[in-house]
Amino acid sequence: MKIYDWPTGPYPARVRIALAEKNLQSRVQFVTVDLWKGEHKTPDFLAKNYSGTLPVLELDDGTLIAECTAITEYLDARDGTPTLTGTTAREKGLIHMMSKRAELELLDAVSVYFHHATPGLGPDVEIYQNAEWGFRQRDKALRGMRYFDGILKSRPFVAGDVFSMADITVIGGLIFADIVKLPLPADCEALQAWYARMQERPSVRNRIAMSEMAAASG
Amino acid sequence: MKIYDWPTGPYPARVRIALAEKNLQSRVQFVTVDLWKGEHKTPDFLAKNYSGTLPVLELDDGTLIAECTAITEYLDARDGTPTLTGTTAREKGLIHMMSKRAELELLDAVSVYFHHATPGLGPDVEIYQNAEWGFRQRDKALRGMRYFDGILKSRPFVAGDVFSMADITVIGGLIFADIVKLPLPADCEALQAWYARMQERPSVRNRIAMSEMAAASG
Repeated sequence: MKIYDWPTGPYPARVRIALAEKNLQSRVQFVTVDLWKGEHKTPDFLAKNYSGTLPVLELDDGTLIAECTAITEYLDARDGTPTLTGTTAREKGLIHMMSKRAELELLDAVSVYFHHATPGLGPDVEIYQNAEWGFRQRDKALRGMRYFDGILKSRPFVAGDVFSMADITVIGGLIFADIVKLPLPADCEALQAWYARMQERPSVRNRIAMSEMAAASG
Repeated sequence: MKIYDWPTGPYPARVRIALAEKNLQSRVQFVTVDLWKGEHKTPDFLAKNYSGTLPVLELDDGTLIAECTAITEYLDARDGTPTLTGTTAREKGLIHMMSKRAELELLDAVSVYFHHATPGLGPDVEIYQNAEWGFRQRDKALRGMRYFDGILKSRPFVAGDVFSMADITVIGGLIFADIVKLPLPADCEALQAWYARMQERPSVRNRIAMSEMAAASG
């Protein structure tokens, strides 16, 4: 399997964390796509992923699977343990919902803020910006942090009692928030404590090392 | 099971089509939430779904599952046949990807256009609008239609050889496009032909009847 990747990207980080949780890193070859040069917006790359985003998984038969949550659906269905998308119907529904909510209310909102209300990837890549929308999304992301703080007051993990794709998505959101200097509010104590615990997981702690190895071999 | 629903809403339509495909309609009680009165933005409803969107599934034990794709993950894991989210790992990955792409590039784009660049649900509900962003999303949706037209030139269904959640999501996008008078381009012949076939499916054809029954019993 190949993964089209950008080592420090918050979205690709989600798949690298998932791969490490499932101990599948060694079965993947990483191919670096340089976001700062806009390589993800070239016709060649858009033919691989119409939406022009990273990461993309390419199977040995040439099948292309874009979107982090689609890649983890694939990985979970292929290699069961540990499961990141749930086992029972109720778990699957809740993990899927909370992962989507973490995208809508946090990760995607921070991303829109970055691309629209900051210089983003620079003027050559950010050919259209809507700053007002970007700032609105920043405020949405800050509200999202407070929502997840509330959730984590009563549960050890974002979707319940088990580490899942929903945690990985919130982690991706907080990685991106850190990049754009959107600090986690000091009074979000449950979210802070959860994030400190998450950063102790080898999959999260070593994602940069995995990136660097990927960059070196890419 | 209960579903918080709005009979003519394009998002709720996705779950009603999925229920009919799986022949589960009779096991669900529909509860109408009036979008035009902004009932989905009240504190009571936001406590059920932080994102303030329909539909939401409530299980008999009180568990709340929002987001159409999370609801169908739940339904597919609970009642297998027919499966709308895939069986093999490759199918699951591809259906998940294409369904997400249909949201990003079509359904969600039309929704943003409706809520931001048209009167939407009216001034009492649409308390913030960004028309420029809305028009951009309209243009994105029109490009999305051309993309799906290209896809359907070479396959009978959006994610391959089988009807799936990806088809349902494109159907939702075209239902919404029709509501906002965004016509399907005349030269999108493959998409037109596919949509004509989709409208012959009882699940799609009878979704309004299902809505009316739901409204009558709600």
